[in-house]
Amino acid sequence: MLTLRFIRPCLVSPPLNHSSFSFSPKQPIGFALRSRMGSYKTSSQSSPVLLFRQLFEKESSTYTYLLADFSHPDKPALLIDPVDKTVDRDLSLVRELGLKLIYAMNTHVHADHVTGTGLIKGKVPGVKSVISKASGSKADVFVEPGDKICFGNLFLEVRATPGHTMGCVTYVTGDGPDQPQPRMAFTGDALLIRGCGRTDFQGGSSQQLYKSVHSQIFTLPKETLLYPAHDYKGFTVTTVGEEMLYNPRLTKDEETFKGIMQNLNLPYPKMIDVAVPANMVCGLQDLGSKAS
Amino acid sequence: MLTLRFIRPCLVSPPLNHSSFSFSPKQPIGFALRSRMGSYKTSSQSSPVLLFRQLFEKESSTYTYLLADFSHPDKPALLIDPVDKTVDRDLSLVRELGLKLIYAMNTHVHADHVTGTGLIKGKVPGVKSVISKASGSKADVFVEPGDKICFGNLFLEVRATPGHTMGCVTYVTGDGPDQPQPRMAFTGDALLIRGCGRTDFQGGSSQQLYKSVHSQIFTLPKETLLYPAHDYKGFTVTTVGEEMLYNPRLTKDEETFKGIMQNLNLPYPKMIDVAVPANMVCGLQDLGSKAS
Repeated sequence: MLTLRFIRPCLVSPPLNHSSFSFSPKQPIGFALRSRMGSYKTSSQSSPVLLFRQLFEKESSTYTYLLADFSHPDKPALLIDPVDKTVDRDLSLVRELGLKLIYAMNTHVHADHVTGTGLIKGKVPGVKSVISKASGSKADVFVEPGDKICFGNLFLEVRATPGHTMGCVTYVTGDGPDQPQPRMAFTGDALLIRGCGRTDFQGGSSQQLYKSVHSQIFTLPKETLLYPAHDYKGFTVTTVGEEMLYNPRLTKDEETFKGIMQNLNLPYPKMIDVAVPANMVCGLQDLGSKAS
Repeated sequence: MLTLRFIRPCLVSPPLNHSSFSFSPKQPIGFALRSRMGSYKTSSQSSPVLLFRQLFEKESSTYTYLLADFSHPDKPALLIDPVDKTVDRDLSLVRELGLKLIYAMNTHVHADHVTGTGLIKGKVPGVKSVISKASGSKADVFVEPGDKICFGNLFLEVRATPGHTMGCVTYVTGDGPDQPQPRMAFTGDALLIRGCGRTDFQGGSSQQLYKSVHSQIFTLPKETLLYPAHDYKGFTVTTVGEEMLYNPRLTKDEETFKGIMQNLNLPYPKMIDVAVPANMVCGLQDLGSKAS
Protein backbone atom coordinates (compact mmCIF):
# COMPACT_ATOMS: atom_id res chain seq x y z
CA MET A 1 0.00 0.00 0.00
CA LEU A 2 1.17 3.48 -0.79
CA THR A 3 0.19 6.81 0.52
CA LEU A 4 0.82 9.88 -1.51
CA ARG A 5 3.19 11.35 1.02
CA PHE A 6 5.89 9.22 -0.57
CA ILE A 7 5.27 10.18 -4.13
CA ARG A 8 4.01 13.74 -4.11
CA PRO A 9 3.44 15.96 -5.99
CA CYS A 10 2.31 13.47 -8.63
CA LEU A 11 1.62 9.78 -8.83
CA VAL A 12 3.02 9.60 -12.34
CA SER A 13 4.43 11.85 -15.04
CA PRO A 14 6.87 14.72 -14.66
CA PRO A 15 5.62 18.05 -13.30
CA LEU A 16 3.72 20.09 -15.83
CA ASN A 17 5.32 22.83 -17.83
CA HIS A 18 2.56 25.37 -17.74
CA SER A 19 4.11 27.60 -20.34
CA SER A 20 4.43 25.08 -23.12
CA PHE A 21 0.96 23.59 -23.41
CA SER A 22 -2.25 25.02 -24.73
CA PHE A 23 -5.57 23.69 -25.86
CA SER A 24 -6.58 24.27 -29.43
CA PRO A 25 -10.03 25.60 -30.25
CA LYS A 26 -10.37 22.51 -32.42
CA GLN A 27 -10.03 20.25 -29.38
CA PRO A 28 -13.19 20.41 -27.34
CA ILE A 29 -12.61 19.14 -23.86
CA GLY A 30 -13.94 15.74 -23.28
CA PHE A 31 -14.02 14.15 -26.65
CA ALA A 32 -10.51 14.15 -27.99
CA LEU A 33 -9.73 11.56 -30.59
CA ARG A 34 -6.75 9.42 -31.31
CA SER A 35 -4.93 10.54 -34.39
CA ARG A 36 -5.29 7.09 -35.91
CA MET A 37 -9.04 7.51 -35.72
CA GLY A 38 -9.34 10.95 -37.13
CA SER A 39 -7.75 13.99 -38.55
CA TYR A 40 -7.45 15.92 -35.34
CA LYS A 41 -5.37 19.04 -35.68
CA THR A 42 -3.43 20.15 -32.63
CA SER A 43 -1.76 23.47 -32.09
CA SER A 44 1.17 21.72 -30.49
CA GLN A 45 2.11 18.07 -30.53
CA SER A 46 2.94 18.31 -26.84
CA SER A 47 -0.42 19.74 -25.77
CA PRO A 48 -2.28 17.52 -23.36
CA VAL A 49 -5.56 16.42 -24.87
CA LEU A 50 -8.23 15.08 -22.58
CA LEU A 51 -10.27 12.13 -23.79
CA PHE A 52 -13.43 11.90 -21.73
CA ARG A 53 -16.27 9.41 -21.70
CA GLN A 54 -19.27 9.21 -19.42
CA LEU A 55 -20.64 5.69 -18.92
CA PHE A 56 -23.85 4.62 -17.20
CA GLU A 57 -24.80 1.54 -15.16
CA LYS A 58 -28.55 1.34 -15.33
CA GLU A 59 -29.39 -0.83 -12.28
CA SER A 60 -27.75 1.46 -9.71
CA SER A 61 -27.91 4.55 -11.95
CA THR A 62 -24.16 4.98 -11.50
CA TYR A 63 -21.91 7.03 -13.74
CA THR A 64 -18.40 5.80 -14.42
CA TYR A 65 -15.95 8.24 -15.99
CA LEU A 66 -13.06 7.45 -18.29
CA LEU A 67 -10.35 10.08 -18.64
CA ALA A 68 -7.08 9.86 -20.57
CA ASP A 69 -4.30 12.07 -21.85
CA PHE A 70 -4.65 11.28 -25.52
CA SER A 71 -1.62 13.25 -26.58
CA HIS A 72 0.77 11.37 -24.33
CA PRO A 73 2.66 8.52 -26.02
CA ASP A 74 1.29 6.03 -23.46
CA LYS A 75 -2.25 7.41 -23.48
CA PRO A 76 -2.49 6.95 -19.71
CA ALA A 77 -6.07 6.62 -18.48
CA LEU A 78 -8.09 6.33 -15.31
CA LEU A 79 -11.59 5.20 -14.41
CA ILE A 80 -13.58 6.94 -11.69
CA ASP A 81 -16.26 4.90 -9.88
CA PRO A 82 -16.30 1.77 -12.05
CA VAL A 83 -19.09 -0.73 -11.28
CA ASP A 84 -18.44 -4.47 -11.04
CA LYS A 85 -21.23 -5.30 -13.51
CA THR A 86 -19.87 -3.07 -16.27
CA VAL A 87 -16.16 -3.76 -15.95
CA ASP A 88 -16.01 -5.76 -19.18
CA ARG A 89 -17.72 -2.94 -21.11
CA ASP A 90 -15.35 -0.36 -19.67
CA LEU A 91 -12.22 -2.39 -20.34
CA SER A 92 -13.36 -3.16 -23.88
CA LEU A 93 -13.67 0.57 -24.56
CA VAL A 94 -10.25 1.20 -23.00
CA ARG A 95 -8.75 -1.41 -25.34
CA GLU A 96 -10.53 -0.10 -28.44
CA LEU A 97 -9.36 3.44 -27.76
CA GLY A 98 -5.81 2.20 -27.28
CA LEU A 99 -5.50 3.55 -23.74
CA LYS A 100 -3.23 2.38 -20.94
CA LEU A 101 -5.32 2.17 -17.80
CA ILE A 102 -3.26 3.11 -14.76
CA TYR A 103 -5.81 3.93 -12.04
CA ALA A 104 -9.20 2.56 -10.97
CA MET A 105 -10.49 5.14 -8.53
CA ASN A 106 -13.41 5.62 -6.19
CA THR A 107 -14.84 8.85 -4.87
CA HIS A 108 -15.95 6.96 -1.74
CA VAL A 109 -17.04 3.61 -0.34
CA HIS A 110 -20.30 3.12 -2.22
CA ALA A 111 -23.34 1.61 -0.54
CA ASP A 112 -25.47 0.99 -3.64
CA HIS A 113 -23.21 -1.04 -5.89
CA VAL A 114 -20.02 -3.06 -5.75
CA THR A 115 -17.01 -1.25 -7.12
CA GLY A 116 -15.27 -2.63 -10.18
CA THR A 117 -11.78 -1.72 -9.00
CA GLY A 118 -10.91 -5.16 -7.70
CA LEU A 119 -12.09 -6.92 -10.86
CA ILE A 120 -10.17 -4.43 -12.99
CA LYS A 121 -6.97 -5.09 -11.06
CA GLY A 122 -7.41 -8.78 -11.74
CA LYS A 123 -7.94 -8.24 -15.46
CA VAL A 124 -5.41 -5.50 -16.18
CA PRO A 125 -2.04 -6.03 -14.53
CA GLY A 126 -0.46 -2.90 -13.17
CA VAL A 127 -3.65 -0.94 -12.53
CA LYS A 128 -3.69 0.61 -9.07
CA SER A 129 -6.83 1.15 -7.02
CA VAL A 130 -7.21 4.60 -5.50
CA ILE A 131 -9.41 5.87 -2.67
CA SER A 132 -9.17 8.46 0.08
CA LYS A 133 -7.18 7.65 3.18
CA ALA A 134 -10.14 8.94 5.20
CA SER A 135 -12.36 6.19 3.78
CA GLY A 136 -10.65 3.61 5.95
CA SER A 137 -10.87 1.03 3.18
CA LYS A 138 -8.21 -0.97 1.38
CA ALA A 139 -6.59 0.21 -1.84
CA ASP A 140 -3.22 0.44 -3.50
CA VAL A 141 -3.02 4.21 -3.24
CA PHE A 142 -4.55 6.48 -0.62
CA VAL A 143 -5.15 10.10 -1.46
CA GLU A 144 -5.50 13.11 0.78
CA PRO A 145 -6.80 16.65 0.20
CA GLY A 146 -4.49 18.61 -2.07
CA ASP A 147 -2.93 15.56 -3.69
CA LYS A 148 -2.55 15.52 -7.46
CA ILE A 149 -3.31 12.39 -9.45
CA CYS A 150 -1.42 12.68 -12.69
CA PHE A 151 -2.13 10.87 -15.94
CA GLY A 152 0.24 12.00 -18.64
CA ASN A 153 0.30 15.77 -18.63
CA LEU A 154 -3.14 16.08 -17.09
CA PHE A 155 -4.01 15.76 -13.44
CA LEU A 156 -6.85 15.60 -10.97
CA GLU A 157 -6.78 17.52 -7.71
CA VAL A 158 -8.23 15.83 -4.62
CA ARG A 159 -10.70 17.79 -2.50
CA ALA A 160 -12.15 16.39 0.73
CA THR A 161 -15.96 16.50 0.59
CA PRO A 162 -17.15 14.37 3.53
CA GLY A 163 -20.75 14.30 4.71
CA HIS A 164 -22.33 11.55 2.58
CA THR A 165 -19.59 9.31 3.99
CA MET A 166 -16.66 10.28 6.14
CA GLY A 167 -14.20 9.55 3.34
CA CYS A 168 -15.84 11.20 0.31
CA VAL A 169 -13.59 13.15 -2.04
CA THR A 170 -14.21 15.18 -5.17
CA TYR A 171 -11.71 14.87 -7.99
CA VAL A 172 -11.24 18.13 -9.92
CA THR A 173 -9.35 18.57 -13.17
CA GLY A 174 -6.27 20.71 -12.80
CA ASP A 175 -6.04 24.46 -12.81
CA GLY A 176 -3.84 26.09 -15.43
CA PRO A 177 -3.75 27.08 -19.09
CA ASP A 178 -2.77 23.58 -20.19
CA GLN A 179 -5.58 21.90 -18.28
CA PRO A 180 -9.23 21.50 -19.39
CA GLN A 181 -11.33 24.64 -19.37
CA PRO A 182 -13.81 24.87 -17.85
CA ARG A 183 -12.68 22.62 -15.04
CA MET A 184 -14.55 19.38 -14.42
CA ALA A 185 -15.37 18.04 -10.95
CA PHE A 186 -16.32 14.45 -10.19
CA THR A 187 -18.37 14.90 -7.09
CA GLY A 188 -19.34 11.35 -6.20
CA ASP A 189 -22.44 11.50 -3.97
CA ALA A 190 -21.48 14.76 -2.28
CA LEU A 191 -23.35 16.79 -4.87
CA LEU A 192 -25.88 15.29 -7.27
CA ILE A 193 -27.69 17.18 -10.03
CA ARG A 194 -30.33 19.18 -8.16
CA GLY A 195 -29.71 16.97 -5.14
CA CYS A 196 -27.10 15.39 -2.86
CA GLY A 197 -26.29 12.05 -1.28
CA ARG A 198 -28.01 10.93 1.93
CA THR A 199 -26.19 11.53 5.20
CA ASP A 200 -27.62 8.87 7.51
CA PHE A 201 -25.07 6.06 7.08
CA GLN A 202 -21.32 5.47 6.90
CA GLY A 203 -20.30 8.34 9.13
CA GLY A 204 -22.53 10.73 7.22
CA SER A 205 -23.26 14.20 8.55
CA SER A 206 -25.55 16.79 7.03
CA GLN A 207 -23.60 19.57 8.74
CA GLN A 208 -20.35 18.28 7.27
CA LEU A 209 -21.88 17.79 3.81
CA TYR A 210 -23.20 21.35 3.76
CA LYS A 211 -19.76 22.67 4.67
CA SER A 212 -18.05 20.41 2.12
CA VAL A 213 -20.20 21.50 -0.80
CA HIS A 214 -20.08 25.19 0.05
CA SER A 215 -16.33 25.30 0.78
CA GLN A 216 -14.97 22.80 -1.75
CA ILE A 217 -17.40 22.75 -4.70
CA PHE A 218 -19.31 26.03 -4.75
CA THR A 219 -15.98 27.87 -4.51
CA LEU A 220 -14.95 26.49 -7.91
CA PRO A 221 -15.58 28.74 -10.94
CA LYS A 222 -19.28 28.83 -11.77
CA GLU A 223 -18.73 27.33 -15.19
CA THR A 224 -17.09 24.22 -13.66
CA LEU A 225 -18.79 21.11 -15.01
CA LEU A 226 -20.07 18.82 -12.29
CA TYR A 227 -20.24 15.10 -12.95
CA PRO A 228 -21.91 13.14 -10.14
CA ALA A 229 -21.67 9.43 -9.33
CA HIS A 230 -25.39 9.02 -9.96
CA ASP A 231 -28.40 10.50 -11.61
CA TYR A 232 -31.90 9.08 -11.40
CA LYS A 233 -33.70 11.44 -13.78
CA GLY A 234 -31.58 11.20 -16.92
CA PHE A 235 -29.43 14.29 -16.46
CA THR A 236 -25.78 13.86 -17.37
CA VAL A 237 -24.03 17.01 -16.21
CA THR A 238 -24.57 20.27 -14.37
CA THR A 239 -22.44 23.25 -13.39
CA VAL A 240 -21.49 25.02 -10.17
CA GLY A 241 -23.49 28.04 -11.32
CA GLU A 242 -26.63 25.98 -11.93
CA GLU A 243 -26.48 24.19 -8.59
CA MET A 244 -25.86 27.44 -6.72
CA LEU A 245 -29.09 28.72 -8.25
CA TYR A 246 -31.29 25.66 -8.47
CA ASN A 247 -30.18 22.90 -6.08
CA PRO A 248 -33.32 22.49 -3.96
CA ARG A 249 -31.35 21.49 -0.86
CA LEU A 250 -27.99 23.21 -0.98
CA THR A 251 -29.29 26.66 -1.89
CA LYS A 252 -30.96 26.71 1.55
CA ASP A 253 -29.28 27.92 4.75
CA GLU A 254 -27.50 25.31 6.83
CA GLU A 255 -30.24 24.78 9.37
CA THR A 256 -32.91 24.31 6.70
CA PHE A 257 -30.61 21.90 4.88
CA LYS A 258 -30.09 19.85 8.03
CA GLY A 259 -33.84 19.73 8.54
CA ILE A 260 -34.38 18.52 4.99
CA MET A 261 -31.79 15.79 5.37
CA GLN A 262 -33.20 14.67 8.73
CA ASN A 263 -36.66 14.25 7.27
CA LEU A 264 -35.97 12.42 4.01
CA ASN A 265 -37.36 9.17 5.46
CA LEU A 266 -35.45 7.11 2.93
CA PRO A 267 -35.64 3.32 3.05
CA TYR A 268 -32.68 1.31 4.30
CA PRO A 269 -30.24 1.06 1.35
CA LYS A 270 -30.97 -2.32 -0.21
CA MET A 271 -27.40 -2.99 -1.29
CA ILE A 272 -25.57 -1.57 1.72
CA ASP A 273 -24.95 -4.81 3.59
CA VAL A 274 -23.38 -6.38 0.53
CA ALA A 275 -21.78 -3.36 -1.07
CA VAL A 276 -20.04 -1.66 1.83
CA PRO A 277 -18.10 -4.68 3.12
CA ALA A 278 -17.13 -5.50 -0.47
CA ASN A 279 -16.12 -1.96 -1.27
CA MET A 280 -13.96 -1.72 1.83
CA VAL A 281 -11.68 -4.20 0.05
CA CYS A 282 -12.04 -2.95 -3.56
CA GLY A 283 -14.98 -5.28 -4.23
CA LEU A 284 -12.72 -8.28 -3.77
CA GLN A 285 -14.38 -9.94 -0.80
CA ASP A 286 -15.20 -13.08 -2.78
CA LEU A 287 -11.85 -13.26 -4.50
CA GLY A 288 -9.72 -12.85 -1.41
CA SER A 289 -8.16 -9.53 -0.58
CA LYS A 290 -5.73 -8.96 -3.43
CA ALA A 291 -5.82 -5.24 -3.20
CA SER A 292 -3.62 -4.69 -0.22
CA MET B 1 -47.61 23.34 -42.35
CA LEU B 2 -44.42 24.56 -43.89
CA THR B 3 -41.86 22.91 -46.01
CA LEU B 4 -38.39 24.26 -46.12
CA ARG B 5 -38.55 25.08 -49.78
CA PHE B 6 -40.26 28.31 -48.77
CA ILE B 7 -37.79 29.36 -46.17
CA ARG B 8 -34.42 28.13 -47.29
CA PRO B 9 -31.57 28.46 -46.58
CA CYS B 10 -32.47 28.79 -42.91
CA LEU B 11 -35.56 28.42 -40.80
CA VAL B 12 -34.52 31.31 -38.57
CA SER B 13 -31.68 33.76 -38.12
CA PRO B 14 -29.76 35.60 -40.80
CA PRO B 15 -27.14 33.75 -42.85
CA LEU B 16 -23.90 33.18 -41.00
CA ASN B 17 -20.95 35.47 -41.38
CA HIS B 18 -18.20 32.90 -41.47
CA SER B 19 -15.42 35.40 -41.12
CA SER B 20 -16.52 37.06 -37.93
CA PHE B 21 -17.05 34.17 -35.54
CA SER B 22 -14.61 31.93 -33.81
CA PHE B 23 -14.66 29.53 -30.92
CA SER B 24 -12.45 30.26 -28.00
CA PRO B 25 -10.31 27.51 -26.53
CA LYS B 26 -12.02 28.40 -23.26
CA GLN B 27 -15.39 27.39 -24.70
CA PRO B 28 -15.56 23.63 -25.00
CA ILE B 29 -18.32 22.57 -27.31
CA GLY B 30 -21.31 21.26 -25.58
CA PHE B 31 -21.22 22.86 -22.19
CA ALA B 32 -21.29 26.57 -22.71
CA LEU B 33 -22.59 28.61 -19.85
CA ARG B 34 -24.70 31.68 -19.58
CA SER B 35 -22.80 34.69 -18.45
CA ARG B 36 -25.17 35.17 -15.54
CA MET B 37 -24.16 31.76 -14.28
CA GLY B 38 -20.47 32.04 -14.62
CA SER B 39 -17.45 33.98 -15.61
CA TYR B 40 -17.15 32.65 -19.10
CA LYS B 41 -14.61 34.49 -21.17
CA THR B 42 -15.29 34.74 -24.88
CA SER B 43 -12.87 35.78 -27.57
CA SER B 44 -15.64 37.68 -29.30
CA GLN B 45 -19.02 38.69 -28.01
CA SER B 46 -20.55 37.70 -31.34
CA SER B 47 -19.14 34.17 -31.40
CA PRO B 48 -21.81 31.50 -31.46
CA VAL B 49 -21.50 29.35 -28.36
CA LEU B 50 -23.17 25.96 -28.36
CA LEU B 51 -24.87 24.86 -25.18
CA PHE B 52 -25.37 21.13 -25.31
CA ARG B 53 -27.03 18.68 -22.95
CA GLN B 54 -27.61 14.98 -23.33
CA LEU B 55 -30.69 13.67 -21.50
CA PHE B 56 -31.76 10.07 -20.95
CA GLU B 57 -35.18 8.41 -20.68
CA LYS B 58 -34.59 5.16 -18.86
CA GLU B 59 -37.63 3.09 -19.84
CA SER B 60 -37.05 3.26 -23.60
CA SER B 61 -33.31 4.03 -23.24
CA THR B 62 -33.82 7.11 -25.38
CA TYR B 63 -31.48 10.07 -25.57
CA THR B 64 -32.94 13.53 -25.98
CA TYR B 65 -30.58 16.35 -26.95
CA LEU B 66 -30.83 20.00 -26.05
CA LEU B 67 -28.87 22.46 -28.18
CA ALA B 68 -28.85 26.25 -27.98
CA ASP B 69 -26.88 29.22 -29.21
CA PHE B 70 -25.92 30.65 -25.86
CA SER B 71 -24.30 33.76 -27.25
CA HIS B 72 -27.39 34.89 -29.14
CA PRO B 73 -29.54 37.45 -27.32
CA ASP B 74 -32.58 35.15 -27.57
CA LYS B 75 -30.66 31.98 -26.67
CA PRO B 76 -32.66 30.02 -29.24
CA ALA B 77 -32.81 26.30 -28.52
CA LEU B 78 -34.04 23.05 -29.97
CA LEU B 79 -34.75 19.57 -28.63
CA ILE B 80 -34.00 16.48 -30.68
CA ASP B 81 -36.08 13.35 -29.99
CA PRO B 82 -37.92 14.44 -26.84
CA VAL B 83 -39.93 11.70 -25.07
CA ASP B 84 -43.46 12.32 -23.78
CA LYS B 85 -42.60 11.04 -20.29
CA THR B 86 -39.71 13.44 -19.77
CA VAL B 87 -41.15 16.59 -21.31
CA ASP B 88 -41.55 18.31 -17.94
CA ARG B 89 -37.93 17.59 -17.02
CA ASP B 90 -36.72 18.91 -20.35
CA LEU B 91 -38.81 22.07 -20.23
CA SER B 92 -37.76 22.75 -16.66
CA LEU B 93 -34.12 22.65 -17.74
CA VAL B 94 -34.88 24.92 -20.70
CA ARG B 95 -36.43 27.44 -18.31
CA GLU B 96 -33.62 27.27 -15.76
CA LEU B 97 -31.00 27.84 -18.44
CA GLY B 98 -32.98 30.80 -19.76
CA LEU B 99 -33.38 29.36 -23.25
CA LYS B 100 -36.03 30.11 -25.86
CA LEU B 101 -37.17 26.80 -27.30
CA ILE B 102 -38.03 27.17 -30.97
CA TYR B 103 -37.99 23.62 -32.37
CA ALA B 104 -39.01 20.18 -31.10
CA MET B 105 -37.55 17.80 -33.64
CA ASN B 106 -37.56 14.11 -34.40
CA THR B 107 -34.99 12.10 -36.31
CA HIS B 108 -37.79 9.74 -37.38
CA VAL B 109 -41.15 8.25 -36.44
CA HIS B 110 -40.17 6.27 -33.36
CA ALA B 111 -41.65 2.85 -32.65
CA ASP B 112 -40.45 2.45 -29.07
CA HIS B 113 -41.71 5.56 -27.34
CA VAL B 114 -44.17 8.39 -27.87
CA THR B 115 -42.55 11.62 -28.95
CA GLY B 116 -42.80 14.64 -26.69
CA THR B 117 -43.15 17.15 -29.51
CA GLY B 118 -46.92 17.43 -29.29
CA LEU B 119 -46.89 17.93 -25.52
CA ILE B 120 -44.15 20.52 -25.85
CA LYS B 121 -46.16 22.46 -28.42
CA GLY B 122 -49.04 22.54 -25.97
CA LYS B 123 -46.85 23.79 -23.12
CA VAL B 124 -44.61 26.26 -24.93
CA PRO B 125 -46.44 28.48 -27.41
CA GLY B 126 -44.55 29.11 -30.60
CA VAL B 127 -42.50 25.93 -30.64
CA LYS B 128 -42.59 24.23 -34.03
CA SER B 129 -42.41 20.47 -34.51
CA VAL B 130 -39.94 19.31 -37.13
CA ILE B 131 -39.61 15.99 -38.97
CA SER B 132 -38.53 14.83 -42.41
CA LYS B 133 -40.94 15.15 -45.29
CA ALA B 134 -40.11 11.54 -46.18
CA SER B 135 -41.51 10.35 -42.85
CA GLY B 136 -45.05 10.93 -44.07
CA SER B 137 -46.11 12.15 -40.63
CA LYS B 138 -47.60 15.42 -39.46
CA ALA B 139 -45.49 18.30 -38.20
CA ASP B 140 -45.22 22.06 -38.47
CA VAL B 141 -42.02 21.97 -40.50
CA PHE B 142 -40.87 19.31 -42.93
CA VAL B 143 -37.18 19.03 -43.71
CA GLU B 144 -35.43 17.56 -46.70
CA PRO B 145 -31.81 16.56 -47.33
CA GLY B 146 -29.52 19.57 -47.49
CA ASP B 147 -31.81 21.82 -45.46
CA LYS B 148 -30.32 23.91 -42.72
CA ILE B 149 -32.09 24.28 -39.39
CA CYS B 150 -30.80 27.46 -37.82
CA PHE B 151 -30.87 28.42 -34.16
CA GLY B 152 -29.16 31.72 -33.61
CA ASN B 153 -25.85 31.64 -35.40
CA LEU B 154 -25.59 27.89 -35.26
CA PHE B 155 -27.26 25.42 -37.57
CA LEU B 156 -27.92 21.76 -38.18
CA GLU B 157 -27.64 20.22 -41.62
CA VAL B 158 -30.19 17.56 -42.62
CA ARG B 159 -28.91 14.32 -44.10
CA ALA B 160 -31.24 11.58 -45.32
CA THR B 161 -30.36 8.28 -43.63
CA PRO B 162 -33.28 5.96 -44.40
CA GLY B 163 -33.17 2.23 -43.73
CA HIS B 164 -34.39 1.92 -40.14
CA THR B 165 -37.49 3.76 -41.34
CA MET B 166 -38.11 5.29 -44.73
CA GLY B 167 -38.01 8.81 -43.27
CA CYS B 168 -34.95 8.72 -41.00
CA VAL B 169 -32.67 11.72 -41.05
CA THR B 170 -29.41 12.56 -39.32
CA TYR B 171 -28.93 16.11 -38.06
CA VAL B 172 -25.32 17.28 -38.29
CA THR B 173 -23.89 20.46 -36.79
CA GLY B 174 -22.72 22.94 -39.39
CA ASP B 175 -19.47 22.99 -41.24
CA GLY B 176 -17.31 26.08 -40.93
CA PRO B 177 -14.88 27.83 -38.58
CA ASP B 178 -17.70 29.37 -36.53
CA GLN B 179 -19.47 26.06 -36.00
CA PRO B 180 -18.66 23.37 -33.39
CA GLN B 181 -15.50 21.39 -33.97
CA PRO B 182 -15.49 18.48 -34.19
CA ARG B 183 -18.88 18.23 -35.81
CA MET B 184 -21.68 16.42 -33.97
CA ALA B 185 -24.18 14.13 -35.69
CA PHE B 186 -27.51 13.08 -34.19
CA THR B 187 -28.04 9.79 -35.91
CA GLY B 188 -31.38 8.65 -34.54
CA ASP B 189 -31.60 4.86 -34.99
CA ALA B 190 -29.64 4.80 -38.24
CA LEU B 191 -26.38 4.29 -36.38
CA LEU B 192 -26.19 3.24 -32.74
CA ILE B 193 -23.00 2.87 -30.70
CA ARG B 194 -21.54 -0.43 -31.96
CA GLY B 195 -24.91 -1.20 -33.52
CA CYS B 196 -27.76 0.10 -35.66
CA GLY B 197 -31.55 0.21 -35.71
CA ARG B 198 -33.59 -2.77 -36.89
CA THR B 199 -34.81 -2.73 -40.49
CA ASP B 200 -37.88 -4.97 -40.44
CA PHE B 201 -40.64 -2.39 -39.89
CA GLN B 202 -41.81 1.03 -41.08
CA GLY B 203 -40.41 0.79 -44.59
CA GLY B 204 -37.07 -0.40 -43.27
CA SER B 205 -34.43 -1.80 -45.60
CA SER B 206 -31.05 -3.21 -44.63
CA GLN B 207 -29.71 -2.39 -48.09
CA GLN B 208 -30.82 1.21 -47.75
CA LEU B 209 -29.48 1.51 -44.19
CA TYR B 210 -26.08 0.23 -45.26
CA LYS B 211 -25.95 2.79 -48.05
CA SER B 212 -27.17 5.59 -45.75
CA VAL B 213 -24.55 5.01 -43.08
CA HIS B 214 -21.68 4.58 -45.51
CA SER B 215 -22.61 7.54 -47.73
CA GLN B 216 -23.98 10.03 -45.18
CA ILE B 217 -22.31 9.25 -41.83
CA PHE B 218 -19.04 7.46 -42.51
CA THR B 219 -18.12 10.23 -44.98
CA LEU B 220 -18.08 12.78 -42.16
CA PRO B 221 -14.69 13.54 -40.59
CA LYS B 222 -13.56 10.65 -38.43
CA GLU B 223 -13.51 12.78 -35.30
CA THR B 224 -17.22 13.64 -35.73
CA LEU B 225 -19.08 12.90 -32.50
CA LEU B 226 -22.04 10.58 -32.99
CA TYR B 227 -25.01 10.88 -30.66
CA PRO B 228 -27.63 8.16 -31.21
CA ALA B 229 -31.29 8.14 -30.21
CA HIS B 230 -30.69 5.15 -27.93
CA ASP B 231 -28.10 3.21 -26.06
CA TYR B 232 -28.78 0.07 -24.08
CA LYS B 233 -25.34 -0.50 -22.56
CA GLY B 234 -24.61 2.85 -20.93
CA PHE B 235 -22.48 4.43 -23.64
CA THR B 236 -23.17 8.10 -24.30
CA VAL B 237 -21.21 8.97 -27.43
CA THR B 238 -19.02 7.51 -30.14
CA THR B 239 -17.20 8.81 -33.21
CA VAL B 240 -17.20 8.10 -36.92
CA GLY B 241 -13.67 6.75 -36.57
CA GLU B 242 -14.61 4.35 -33.81
CA GLU B 243 -17.67 3.00 -35.62
CA MET B 244 -15.72 2.54 -38.85
CA LEU B 245 -13.31 0.36 -36.88
CA TYR B 246 -15.52 -1.37 -34.34
CA ASN B 247 -19.18 -1.40 -35.37
CA PRO B 248 -19.84 -5.15 -35.47
CA ARG B 249 -22.43 -4.80 -38.24
CA LEU B 250 -21.50 -1.87 -40.40
CA THR B 251 -17.82 -2.72 -40.74
CA LYS B 252 -18.93 -5.80 -42.70
CA ASP B 253 -19.54 -5.85 -46.47
CA GLU B 254 -23.07 -5.16 -47.62
CA GLU B 255 -24.11 -8.77 -48.17
CA THR B 256 -22.87 -9.85 -44.74
CA PHE B 257 -24.66 -6.86 -43.20
CA LYS B 258 -27.92 -7.82 -44.91
CA GLY B 259 -27.54 -11.37 -43.63
CA ILE B 260 -26.97 -10.11 -40.07
CA MET B 261 -30.06 -7.91 -40.23
CA GLN B 262 -32.21 -10.69 -41.69
CA ASN B 263 -31.31 -13.03 -38.88
CA LEU B 264 -31.66 -10.84 -35.81
CA ASN B 265 -34.90 -12.62 -34.82
CA LEU B 266 -35.99 -9.67 -32.71
CA PRO B 267 -39.36 -9.74 -30.95
CA TYR B 268 -42.24 -7.63 -32.25
CA PRO B 269 -41.66 -4.09 -30.89
CA LYS B 270 -43.83 -3.89 -27.79
CA MET B 271 -44.62 -0.21 -28.19
CA ILE B 272 -44.99 -0.06 -31.98
CA ASP B 273 -48.79 -0.26 -32.17
CA VAL B 274 -49.15 2.62 -29.74
CA ALA B 275 -46.10 4.67 -30.59
CA VAL B 276 -46.17 4.78 -34.38
CA PRO B 277 -49.76 6.01 -34.81
CA ALA B 278 -49.13 8.58 -32.06
CA ASN B 279 -45.85 9.71 -33.53
CA MET B 280 -47.38 10.15 -36.96
CA VAL B 281 -49.24 13.09 -35.40
CA CYS B 282 -46.51 14.42 -33.04
CA GLY B 283 -47.72 12.22 -30.20
CA LEU B 284 -51.02 14.09 -30.12
CA GLN B 285 -53.45 11.26 -30.87
CA ASP B 286 -55.20 11.66 -27.53
CA LEU B 287 -55.27 15.43 -27.61
CA GLY B 288 -56.63 15.82 -31.09
CA SER B 289 -54.31 16.68 -33.95
CA LYS B 290 -53.08 20.13 -33.05
CA ALA B 291 -49.88 19.83 -34.98
CA SER B 292 -51.13 20.31 -38.49
